[in-house]
Amino acid sequence: MSIIEYLFGTRKKTANVARERLQIILAHERAGRTGPDYLPQLQKELVEVISKYVAVNPDDIKVQLDRKDELEVLEVNIVLPEHTRR
Amino acid sequence: MSIIEYLFGTRKKTANVARERLQIILAHERAGRTGPDYLPQLQKELVEVISKYVAVNPDDIKVQLDRKDELEVLEVNIVLPEHTRR
Repeated sequence: MSIIEYLFGTRKKTANVARERLQIILAHERAGRTGPDYLPQLQKELVEVISKYVAVNPDDIKVQLDRKDELEVLEVNIVLPEHTRR
Repeated sequence: MSIIEYLFGTRKKTANVARERLQIILAHERAGRTGPDYLPQLQKELVEVISKYVAVNPDDIKVQLDRKDELEVLEVNIVLPEHTRR
């Protein structure tokens, strides 16, 4: 399954109000248990970079962190300002 | 299937040389066909932010862009400097 199918496959298109969305996924596979955990700080800076490109409302940012053994996945979902599809 | 299973599920652990990896996925769902394409520039800046946290060798960065209708997914895979697992 391609990444586009995985990320967007299940989402149904809703009415005519299309919301522009940006999703950032940071997946970190560590070589061992040690080493600094820089994902949270990195995530903060990435959102700052993104806000230079699009008007991001902090309330429209959802962050989720999953951890399993040496794997960490940080998911940032941003719903961008509304567009009404013509 | 959780995102950790999707991203890491198929990868088998290789020998004792664990490579630290960082994967950044930028998924952009546009509200329509128009609008600027800022993903390439955004990707460049995100890698710059990441290089503040980890020593990133440009040769170890693989970038892949998938497009389908209003969906764009930019995948950046970075293999970080080697650690030998004790």
